[in-house]
Amino acid sequence: MPDDFKVTPYDVEGVVDYERLMKHAGLEQVSDKMLDRMKKHAGELHFMLRRKIFFAQRDLSWLLDEYEKGNKFYLYTGIAPSGAMTFAHLFNFIFNQWLQEKFKVDMYIQIPDEEKPLIRDVTFEETHRLAYEDILNIIALGFDSKRTKIFLDTEYAKTMYKPAMKIAKRITFSMIKDSFGFTNENNVGSIFYTSMQAVPAILKSIEEGKNVPCLIPCGVDQDVHFRLTRDAVSKLGYYKPAGLYSKFMPGLSGVKKMSAHSPNDTIYLNDSPEVVEKKVQKAFTGQQSTAELQKKLGGDPEKCAVCQYYKFLFEPDDKKLEKIFEGERSGTMLAGEHKEHLAKTINKFLEEHRKKKERLKDKIEDFVVRD
Amino acid sequence: MPDDFKVTPYDVEGVVDYERLMKHAGLEQVSDKMLDRMKKHAGELHFMLRRKIFFAQRDLSWLLDEYEKGNKFYLYTGIAPSGAMTFAHLFNFIFNQWLQEKFKVDMYIQIPDEEKPLIRDVTFEETHRLAYEDILNIIALGFDSKRTKIFLDTEYAKTMYKPAMKIAKRITFSMIKDSFGFTNENNVGSIFYTSMQAVPAILKSIEEGKNVPCLIPCGVDQDVHFRLTRDAVSKLGYYKPAGLYSKFMPGLSGVKKMSAHSPNDTIYLNDSPEVVEKKVQKAFTGQQSTAELQKKLGGDPEKCAVCQYYKFLFEPDDKKLEKIFEGERSGTMLAGEHKEHLAKTINKFLEEHRKKKERLKDKIEDFVVRD
Repeated sequence: MPDDFKVTPYDVEGVVDYERLMKHAGLEQVSDKMLDRMKKHAGELHFMLRRKIFFAQRDLSWLLDEYEKGNKFYLYTGIAPSGAMTFAHLFNFIFNQWLQEKFKVDMYIQIPDEEKPLIRDVTFEETHRLAYEDILNIIALGFDSKRTKIFLDTEYAKTMYKPAMKIAKRITFSMIKDSFGFTNENNVGSIFYTSMQAVPAILKSIEEGKNVPCLIPCGVDQDVHFRLTRDAVSKLGYYKPAGLYSKFMPGLSGVKKMSAHSPNDTIYLNDSPEVVEKKVQKAFTGQQSTAELQKKLGGDPEKCAVCQYYKFLFEPDDKKLEKIFEGERSGTMLAGEHKEHLAKTINKFLEEHRKKKERLKDKIEDFVVRD
Repeated sequence: MPDDFKVTPYDVEGVVDYERLMKHAGLEQVSDKMLDRMKKHAGELHFMLRRKIFFAQRDLSWLLDEYEKGNKFYLYTGIAPSGAMTFAHLFNFIFNQWLQEKFKVDMYIQIPDEEKPLIRDVTFEETHRLAYEDILNIIALGFDSKRTKIFLDTEYAKTMYKPAMKIAKRITFSMIKDSFGFTNENNVGSIFYTSMQAVPAILKSIEEGKNVPCLIPCGVDQDVHFRLTRDAVSKLGYYKPAGLYSKFMPGLSGVKKMSAHSPNDTIYLNDSPEVVEKKVQKAFTGQQSTAELQKKLGGDPEKCAVCQYYKFLFEPDDKKLEKIFEGERSGTMLAGEHKEHLAKTINKFLEEHRKKKERLKDKIEDFVVRD
């Protein structure tokens, strides 16, 4: 790992240089050719692909080769509950839902409700409750209940435990130590956990008794788990899962990865309209200190949290996004109106989202599988 | 651990000095006072207690205090399948069955079918098959189906996984490394596994929603797991399980711990009468090289595998055992007849055992619990 930043599932520090991160991790970028192939099958390209928010991949060409041969992949992603869900979690599921719909594929969503209790001060009881909040937020995005399986590790452990053990046999403490920066003082649950996160990458192959390609779209921090997964499952005779990894959605203060642990740096899906307004008002824009200076010197949309919120989620139209960015650069977009408009857009989204959740609150059982 | 011998669940080496082992592990001996108390409740003392085959304990006085207050304990023991069952495995279950019957208590039997695949070259499929062979051997000893629960880890993982994770959070790799002599090259499954073996020690407390005392009668090599278990579960607010630990049944070649991995050093419960005879014929007795010398000098029953088979299993009557031992010491018992008699006794036991298994082969499901 480079000295000036750090990316693991448990720790993102410093300003992430995605180019160097890819090189270090042996990741490759999502090429224009790959995007063309995806567009051909999907009929369109999601803005998160066009904007290279999902920027890095493993074995995506192979996955598309298989798809074109009629060997459909399935999707696997997840979320480890530790607090209320934020947009930084949600955008990945929005993208996964799009993939499911456009490629007409099955989706496995793991909710590892044991992961965070193993490494943080949160109880299993709390993550269990949060898991079901997360599930409602996820299904409200439009996943197809006939094609989607959602499971909590603690409720699906009978199914997952044996394959997890087979994987665990192929992972040494040395490998975990090197990958996560763990020490001898780490608890043995956290050391073992990667084996559970690996299982959904082969679960459909186990169910069907034959190899099924798997694509894992998720945040690039999770690649540490999946690098180990790929080696271990291939030793067991399974396909290595392909990966499609996103950058981190910046926090409101302009920090690198939006963290669910700094309440003012992030918008929770259950924030009230007033709280959303207040948080957006305080967001970092990088604009100049006065309206006058701003008009004269402009700002940098790549550093402006408000612009990034549009880029990651709230302005799917590239032309409109460019207009927002240009307004920031040229100084014609002033912080006040900039923020007011974003807060409105977010609150409109959340209002719709709440309605969808209300409609789906009795449908959770259509998605959840248990032992 | 002393330099000249080693006792862990995965490795028993050298000549075990039980006194020094107890001191090293912080174990206490089973005192005459404890035996008196047990006799009072049981109405008799099992010969394995009288002979101090179950020689060491943790918190046995406390357990008896609770029992006398009306706070009944439950028993927990287990077997990790890796090959056919031997007498070295069986004697522990014979003792547990006696405890269940005499103290009228519940019994939890864990079959950790993942443990050996994690550390040896045996498959999960093989241990699953062996697990059910073991269960039939165990229930043939007379366990009460109304008071006994038997479970395979892979089949009971949904029940066990969450408590295992809570325990795993309280065990560091340092602790595992020190306890088992593991290195960074150990796989993360083997490092985690102790957490699963710990669970049955609190399972009844979880089920009943209140603390229930637990007694673990098993081989002393397992104490390494249970020392860690005791610390971890007490941090979670549960009683520390009490332990009652046995010495190792010697192998036929007079080796310290009977190993299921030296086929000629051990008798399998599925050995044919002819194989039993052949193996016993080759057993080490420590007797003199000729009948004449033997009559003159005698032998040492503590070193004679045949005498030890009687002591551990096949001569419950202390007076008769003493007669056998005296015959060995005085040289009046010759190796030939000594062995012939043992082979007959073993074959008689095995014939009865096979009949009991035949009668119970459809009753396995009365004992097994699954998720």
